[in-house]
Amino acid sequence: MASTTITVTGMTCGHCVASVKEEVEALPGVTGVEVALITGGTSQVTVTSDTPLDRASVAGAIDEAGYQLADA
Amino acid sequence: MASTTITVTGMTCGHCVASVKEEVEALPGVTGVEVALITGGTSQVTVTSDTPLDRASVAGAIDEAGYQLADA
Repeated sequence: MASTTITVTGMTCGHCVASVKEEVEALPGVTGVEVALITGGTSQVTVTSDTPLDRASVAGAIDEAGYQLADA
Repeated sequence: MASTTITVTGMTCGHCVASVKEEVEALPGVTGVEVALITGGTSQVTVTSDTPLDRASVAGAIDEAGYQLADA
């Protein structure tokens, strides 16, 4: 079991959380996604997976949902 | 053709706009819904309809979408 934490900007509400979860959960090997929402600030997305995740795939999923990595 | 403008708090993003539009558009007689989003402030929702709308039905639809009327 691996865990990856990334920081994301631009998320403002529960709908944003749902969009991000949906995209990240669709990645192969992902077993769970937790989001600590900071409206108007930097939210924290923690992804658990069977094997360590490629950071670029997570970044791609976040981008697909319409948000940016804070450290990108 | 009638037009009703109401002010709504708690809307933060395009997902919120979509939720409000969906609920208000479902009201009988509604022909259009325009939202001027003020993130973290008071957004303005303008509803056009065939006949004048019952304000309480609009308030109900906003509540159903998960937001509050600013002047409620």
